[in-house]
Amino acid sequence: MRQASARLEVATKGKGLIDISREVHAFVARERIGQGLLTVFCRHTSASLLIQENADPDVQEDLKHFLETIAPEGAGYVHDTEGADDMPAHIRAALTQTSLSIPIESSRLVLGTWQGIYLCEHRSAPHKRTIALHVMGE
Amino acid sequence: MRQASARLEVATKGKGLIDISREVHAFVARERIGQGLLTVFCRHTSASLLIQENADPDVQEDLKHFLETIAPEGAGYVHDTEGADDMPAHIRAALTQTSLSIPIESSRLVLGTWQGIYLCEHRSAPHKRTIALHVMGE
Amino acid sequence: MRQASARLEVATKGKGLIDISREVHAFVARERIGQGLLTVFCRHTSASLLIQENADPDVQEDLKHFLETIAPEGAGYVHDTEGADDMPAHIRAALTQTSLSIPIESSRLVLGTWQGIYLCEHRSAPHKRTIALHVMGE
Repeated sequence: MRQASARLEVATKGKGLIDISREVHAFVARERIGQGLLTVFCRHTSASLLIQENADPDVQEDLKHFLETIAPEGAGYVHDTEGADDMPAHIRAALTQTSLSIPIESSRLVLGTWQGIYLCEHRSAPHKRTIALHVMGE
Repeated sequence: MRQASARLEVATKGKGLIDISREVHAFVARERIGQGLLTVFCRHTSASLLIQENADPDVQEDLKHFLETIAPEGAGYVHDTEGADDMPAHIRAALTQTSLSIPIESSRLVLGTWQGIYLCEHRSAPHKRTIALHVMGE
Repeated sequence: MRQASARLEVATKGKGLIDISREVHAFVARERIGQGLLTVFCRHTSASLLIQENADPDVQEDLKHFLETIAPEGAGYVHDTEGADDMPAHIRAALTQTSLSIPIESSRLVLGTWQGIYLCEHRSAPHKRTIALHVMGE
């Protein structure tokens, strides 16, 4: 049994979902783990992770719109010192994922055919985000 | 330290929560892991996982109703080629879990007394769903 | 490779977020894992876990208010035998996390600068909650 860690730096362009599947798959392939467990961890509280459909980009647009609607700006939040989009971003992050756990079988993540791994940027301005990757197995 | 993987096939009857606790407990017992970590992973983007109360079935009904209300059909989604219930299903999956991590102590999952493991079907029609199970420990 | 388990008992004061970061960091330090994976698991269905901003306590107030608003009491739930705040608590737990997976590098959790680990109490009355901790690595 062995393990490996890495960091993924992602430049976002403001609110929206960014497909990081290719980079995550590359890490798993590079570490040559045949069977094991991958953890993807987002080191931010105004960005998050989601496994979602990778076939139709409209799904990502609809998800972005849903998260904007459910936690709108200007809804009377107490916390507003970091901008009107900051507290909604924390809420949208709380409703999605900070960490994802994905088993590995036969050297591949067990993702379904239509599952992509996404970083969700919840703030309006572009940001640099850091994702921690960890794999354990043999 | 060792690990094991398995698949669970679940036939759903349309929208609702299905208790998969027994099958998951059976996998852990079969692999004879005394201390370790179990990962349950849903290979779909319109179904998901949830740990919830297993005492009163009304809780599952209320959760189903809540998810229908928060992400209703016909809310003007761009993505509608796969049916009116498809985009709401993606949103309901995004708000719940794709993966669950449950520690094992003394050969048992550390679930609380009232915690059951549920597959949430978010689409209206019956589906066949695949869950990946992975355990690591000794 | 080795592993360790522990339990954390937390006394809550009714609805709100409680920072359990210090106790979780202490467990990781005590077990002297240099590289590995920590799992935090909440053994309840009306309390949950969240990684959120630890700088401004207003964020926790806004999150609490948001969860109260999105799953209000008295919304016509079928399940009401355990009190008007019980079903809303299950929904708020379903929308947040039952388990958190956090990688460890250089003997430290890879949490970002502003990330704290919180137990979310969703019921109105004070409760005693149990969190299971598990770490695996070397």
